[in-house]
Amino acid sequence: MLKVYGDVYSGNCFKVKLLLSHLKIQHQWIHVDILKSESRTPEFLSKNPNGKIPVVELEPDVFLWESSAILAYLADGTRFWPDDRLERAYVQQWMAFEQFSHEPHIAVARYIVRYLNRPPALEESLRQKMGPGYRALDVMEKHLSSRTFFVAQRYTIADIALYGYTHVAHEGDFDLSKYSAISSWIERVRAQVGYIDMDE
Amino acid sequence: MLKVYGDVYSGNCFKVKLLLSHLKIQHQWIHVDILKSESRTPEFLSKNPNGKIPVVELEPDVFLWESSAILAYLADGTRFWPDDRLERAYVQQWMAFEQFSHEPHIAVARYIVRYLNRPPALEESLRQKMGPGYRALDVMEKHLSSRTFFVAQRYTIADIALYGYTHVAHEGDFDLSKYSAISSWIERVRAQVGYIDMDE
Repeated sequence: MLKVYGDVYSGNCFKVKLLLSHLKIQHQWIHVDILKSESRTPEFLSKNPNGKIPVVELEPDVFLWESSAILAYLADGTRFWPDDRLERAYVQQWMAFEQFSHEPHIAVARYIVRYLNRPPALEESLRQKMGPGYRALDVMEKHLSSRTFFVAQRYTIADIALYGYTHVAHEGDFDLSKYSAISSWIERVRAQVGYIDMDE
Repeated sequence: MLKVYGDVYSGNCFKVKLLLSHLKIQHQWIHVDILKSESRTPEFLSKNPNGKIPVVELEPDVFLWESSAILAYLADGTRFWPDDRLERAYVQQWMAFEQFSHEPHIAVARYIVRYLNRPPALEESLRQKMGPGYRALDVMEKHLSSRTFFVAQRYTIADIALYGYTHVAHEGDFDLSKYSAISSWIERVRAQVGYIDMDE
């Protein structure tokens, strides 16, 4: 059975959990507590030398890491990743956007607030995440203002990747109330067959 | 003809140029000067709302951005991206690693040194890039110590993606002399048919 090493409250891990739910793939979830440095032990580093979650074990001792690579692997050949060459590339474009221009700001702000309980020493770091985080949300809002989903007017792993941290952005002190297109898209994601919440 | 909007001395743009050279794809290069904010003009933002280079124009008004998505699009169906499902995913894993754990440190350090001429005000920022930058190099070194290339013992877009900033890491003050596996791999990349340098 496929194993996932991760923390369901990490957006990067939740993305994998959500796709596995849509695909009805049975799996075993092994909790990794990053606050206890469980992703930095020699045993964990033998699974992912970069020391990050999520990691999936596809078969005994065959590991794959990086959430976007895991999503792409699992979605290959399914409706969650289109066959058309350009549409496939657009899905990758938005997954890369998420990891490079969205996650480092919105996920890290949420980590400071939710995981570390917003220590005063990190208040300035938190403040610096706001500008680029809102710019990423602006890019999403504009794109979604004329579309139902990010690519090809259908729900793909690009949506799953971007949903991961966007739907909990408020936990990093981001105010989504003025983002009506994003808010409608969040509702569309939640209406998909097989959707699950982080804490389900 | 395919158009590329970018700066050949940006590693992210160079990756695209290198793959185009391997594939012998004719293209027009349109220089974008990021120091003059040319990637933030309304005209540029109509090509990439995220305001970053590189952007490719595949046909008139059909734009694709994010270097890893561009590499994947161009390499699809070629020897630079394997067909095997797991090998394809490993290529994506390493491209994601580069963008998330390598580029934000090594490329940004190089930007501070080479593009901004190392202003004293950014000395502390530069210093903070060293630890995580070297950790990314350590991960690469370990992986390459028993392999010729990152995936499937052959040259793929994972190598091109990681080569982009690694081969100029010294311009960001990183010392590669103790990384023998990386140094050998750099030579293997340079020996590939169709290889070009940044300034060619």
